[in-house]
Amino acid sequence: MNHPTHIDVDGLRSIFASRCVVDDEKLLESFSLDQVGDERYAQRPAAVVFPETTDEIVALVKWANRTGTPITPRGAGSGLAGGAIPVAGGVVCSFRNMDRIIEIDVDNLMVVVEPGVITNALDRALKPHGLFFAGYPMSEDICFVGGNVAENAGGGRAVKYGVTGNYVLGAKVVTGSGDVITLGGKRIKDVTGYNLLQLFIGSEGTLGLFTELTIRVIPRPAQRAIVLSTFSSSGDATGCVAALKRELPNGPSSIEYIDGTTAKETDVSLPKSQRTGIPESVNAVLLVELDGDTDQTLSDQLEAATGICERYNASILERGTDSNAMARSWKLRKQIPWWAKRHAGPWQTLEDVVVPPASIVELVAAVEELRDRFNVAIPLFGHAGDGNFHLVPLQPADMKLEEWDETLHQLLDELYDRVAKLGGTISGEHGIGRKRVPYVRRFIGDYQLQALRGIKKVFDPKGILNPGVIIES
Amino acid sequence: MNHPTHIDVDGLRSIFASRCVVDDEKLLESFSLDQVGDERYAQRPAAVVFPETTDEIVALVKWANRTGTPITPRGAGSGLAGGAIPVAGGVVCSFRNMDRIIEIDVDNLMVVVEPGVITNALDRALKPHGLFFAGYPMSEDICFVGGNVAENAGGGRAVKYGVTGNYVLGAKVVTGSGDVITLGGKRIKDVTGYNLLQLFIGSEGTLGLFTELTIRVIPRPAQRAIVLSTFSSSGDATGCVAALKRELPNGPSSIEYIDGTTAKETDVSLPKSQRTGIPESVNAVLLVELDGDTDQTLSDQLEAATGICERYNASILERGTDSNAMARSWKLRKQIPWWAKRHAGPWQTLEDVVVPPASIVELVAAVEELRDRFNVAIPLFGHAGDGNFHLVPLQPADMKLEEWDETLHQLLDELYDRVAKLGGTISGEHGIGRKRVPYVRRFIGDYQLQALRGIKKVFDPKGILNPGVIIES
Repeated sequence: MNHPTHIDVDGLRSIFASRCVVDDEKLLESFSLDQVGDERYAQRPAAVVFPETTDEIVALVKWANRTGTPITPRGAGSGLAGGAIPVAGGVVCSFRNMDRIIEIDVDNLMVVVEPGVITNALDRALKPHGLFFAGYPMSEDICFVGGNVAENAGGGRAVKYGVTGNYVLGAKVVTGSGDVITLGGKRIKDVTGYNLLQLFIGSEGTLGLFTELTIRVIPRPAQRAIVLSTFSSSGDATGCVAALKRELPNGPSSIEYIDGTTAKETDVSLPKSQRTGIPESVNAVLLVELDGDTDQTLSDQLEAATGICERYNASILERGTDSNAMARSWKLRKQIPWWAKRHAGPWQTLEDVVVPPASIVELVAAVEELRDRFNVAIPLFGHAGDGNFHLVPLQPADMKLEEWDETLHQLLDELYDRVAKLGGTISGEHGIGRKRVPYVRRFIGDYQLQALRGIKKVFDPKGILNPGVIIES
Repeated sequence: MNHPTHIDVDGLRSIFASRCVVDDEKLLESFSLDQVGDERYAQRPAAVVFPETTDEIVALVKWANRTGTPITPRGAGSGLAGGAIPVAGGVVCSFRNMDRIIEIDVDNLMVVVEPGVITNALDRALKPHGLFFAGYPMSEDICFVGGNVAENAGGGRAVKYGVTGNYVLGAKVVTGSGDVITLGGKRIKDVTGYNLLQLFIGSEGTLGLFTELTIRVIPRPAQRAIVLSTFSSSGDATGCVAALKRELPNGPSSIEYIDGTTAKETDVSLPKSQRTGIPESVNAVLLVELDGDTDQTLSDQLEAATGICERYNASILERGTDSNAMARSWKLRKQIPWWAKRHAGPWQTLEDVVVPPASIVELVAAVEELRDRFNVAIPLFGHAGDGNFHLVPLQPADMKLEEWDETLHQLLDELYDRVAKLGGTISGEHGIGRKRVPYVRRFIGDYQLQALRGIKKVFDPKGILNPGVIIES
C-alpha cells in the first residue's frame, strides 16, 4: 500500500477527541519501539489513539480504510519481536484504556475481559475465587492479556499448562475491513465452521483487533514448590530435563534452563539479599517448579524431582516451599533478559528458537559450539521442558557495530540451519513481528507464504492492519 | 462448480490402476453414505480410489482440478453429519490403505501416523510404551485418526483431556490445488506465521487432505474407576455434574449423562449378562469415570465422586475398578446411538448441540419441554461435563414421513433457538458436514460465512474438495 504523507488528524479527533495524541513528542517516541531490543527498529507514529469501546475501534478501522493509513495495535509494548512497532507516519492503537475485567464466571470457569487487562491484575482478581489463569508470560507484571493472545504467548508454565491460545474460548474481533465478528464463546467444544478463533490467535494484529476475550480458567493449585539445581555439565542438565518429563506424574509446572555463566553473572548483578549464590564451577542451572493440591502430592513430587536431579549429578541450591527461596529462584530467571540487555547494549537480539523436546541436548551443544567458534558470549536460557530456548548473542566490547551486524547475521544463519535440521523453528512464543520477517522464508515455503497473504486479504483487503509484521508488506 | 456428466476413468486408472473402483455397485453404494442417519442423504460416487502415498493424492487432486471432478475424502465413514458423503458422480478418496503407524517417538511423547490408522489400533500400539492417545471418540473401535482430526472429534474423555485438535502438533497436507504443505511438526510451541494447522483441523476435508499427522501422546493413567449413578430428577443430575467439576481435584475423565427412559430401554435391549439393571423410577443416569496413577489418588477420587453423587440424591448402581462393571457401564452408554438408530428407523437425526457448561440445567429442561409439547420421544445423552449433548428425536410409529419431516424441522428450529439463547451452538464435535449446512447461517453471520468462502478459495481455488460440506456449494 502507499502510505499517506500526512495524516487526517481531524478525522481521528472526531472519533477520539483528546484521546488522539499527535503532538506529544515524548509520547510518540515511547510508542515508536517495543521491547525488540535493537533501537534501530524504531519508527515514529503520526498519532497514538486510546480507544475505549469496540465502536471506536470500528470507526478507527473504517477511517484507516478510507484514508489508507496503517494501524498498529499495541498492548503493553512488552513484545520482543517488534510486533507493536508502527509504520512511520501511521497510527498506534493502544489498548491501555480497555482494561476492564467484564465478568468472572465462576460457574463456567471462564472470564470475559477487555484486551488491555494486565496479566497479573487478572490473576489477582481470580485468586479470591480459587481460580488461576494458566497463561503465564514471564512479563506477567506488565503484559496485557490481549497482547498475550495476539502473540499466542507461552511462558514459564507452558510445560504443564500449555500456551495462551489453549485457554482462549471466544473473542470479539474488529477485522481489517472494520467488520465485527464474534468467534467462539463460553463453549468448551465448538466445531461450527473453520477455527477462525485459533487463526486470529497469534496473528499479531495483522488480521483483526481483539476487543473482548473469553478465557478459560482453572482451579488454582493450592501449593507450589521449587528445586533449583546446578550441574557441572550441560549434558547432565538436558538429560535431567528429559527424565523429569518422563518420570514425574502430572509433570512439573516449570522446567527452566540457564547456562552457568549467565546464571553466575546475573546472580552477582542482583542485590546481595536476592542472590541464590550460584557456585563458580557451574555449567548449567535448572529451575524446576512443582504444584499440587495436597501436602502429600507436593512433597512426593518434590522428593521425586530432587532424586531425578541428583541422579544427573546435580547439586541442590534451593528446595521446598519457602516463599523467599522461590522468590530468589524466579528472580534469577526473570532477571536474565534485563541483565543481558544492559550487558549487550542497544543492539541485542533475543532469540526464541524451538526444537523437539528430545533434541535440546543437540541444541545446547550447537549453541556452545557457535559460541566457541564465533568467540561470542551467548547467554542461553528458557523453557527447556518445551524445547523452547532464548539466547542473546552479546556484541564483544571491542567490536564495532558494522562488524557486529555481519557477525550476528552469520551466527543466526548457522543457528537457524541447526534448528531447522533438528526439526525446530524460528519462534516458539515471541512471534515473527518485524524482526524475523527476513528469516521467515527459511521456515515457511513460497506456497504457504502466499496462502498467508491470501488469508490476510480475506480479513484486511486494504492491508491497513500492522503492515510489515509477519509478512513483508 | 459445474460437475462433469461423466468421469475420466482412464486418468484415474493411470494413477491408481486396480485401486480405482468404478464398477463394483455394492462398493459404490457403501461409499454413498456415512453414519449421518437419514438415508436420503445418499449420493452415489462415480469412483472410489484407495491411495497409498502422498504423491498419489497429489496426482489425484491435480487430475480433479484438470477435469473439474469433486473429491470427497473418507476415513472410516463413521461421521455423523454427512461430511464423507460424496457429490453424486464424484470421487471418494478412501484412506483405508494409508494406515501405517510411522513412528512411536517415546522420547518426544509423540507419534507420526497416516490418517487411516484406526483410533484403537493406535492406542493398542501405545499401551506397551505406557502411553495414551487422549483423543477418544465413542467410535474408537472403527474411526480413523485422520477423520478424528478432520472433524476435530471430541468424545467421552474430552472433559478432562480436551478434543483431538489439542493433541495434533503437525500435519502433511495436500491442499485443494494439489500443493503439499507441512504444518507444525514435533514442536510443543510454534508461532511461526498464522496457525494454519488449527485452521485445517476440523475443516472436514474442504481445504486439504491430511497424509501424515504428528500427534502428542501422554503417559497412560495407571488405573481407572467408574461410578454409575441414577437420579429420580434430571435437575439433581445436572446439579451433580457442576459439583463434580467444581469439587474434584484433577477432575473426572468422563461425565456422561443419559436420560432415564433411554437408559432403561437401552439397558433392556442388551443381553442379560451385559445389563446394568437401571431401575424403573429413574429420570437420569450419570456415568463418571476417574483415572489416576496410584491406588490412593484413585480411591480418594472415587470416594469424593460417590459422596458428591449421593449429596445430589443419587443411587449408586456400579462403583469401583471392577473391569466387568466398567465394561457394563460403558456398554450402556455406547449402545444408545445404535439402540436409537434401530428404534427410529432410517430417518433419524443425531443432534450435537453444545452450551456453556453451567447452562446444562436449562438445556435439559428445554429438551424435556420440547419432548412434551411436540409429543415426541427425544433420547438425550452425552458429554454433560462439556455442555455437549446428543439427542435423537424419534419419529412416532403412527406418523407419516412427510409429517415427521415437518415436525422435526419445527422441533429443531426451536431447539436451536434455545441453544443460541443459552450462548451455545449447533455442533460441539460432530461437525457441520452436509446435514447442518441449512442451519449454519443461524450461528455464523454473513460476513463470517463470506470469510470462510474466502479461506476456502485460498486453498481450494476450483472448489474441488468436498463441495457442499460446511459451506453451500
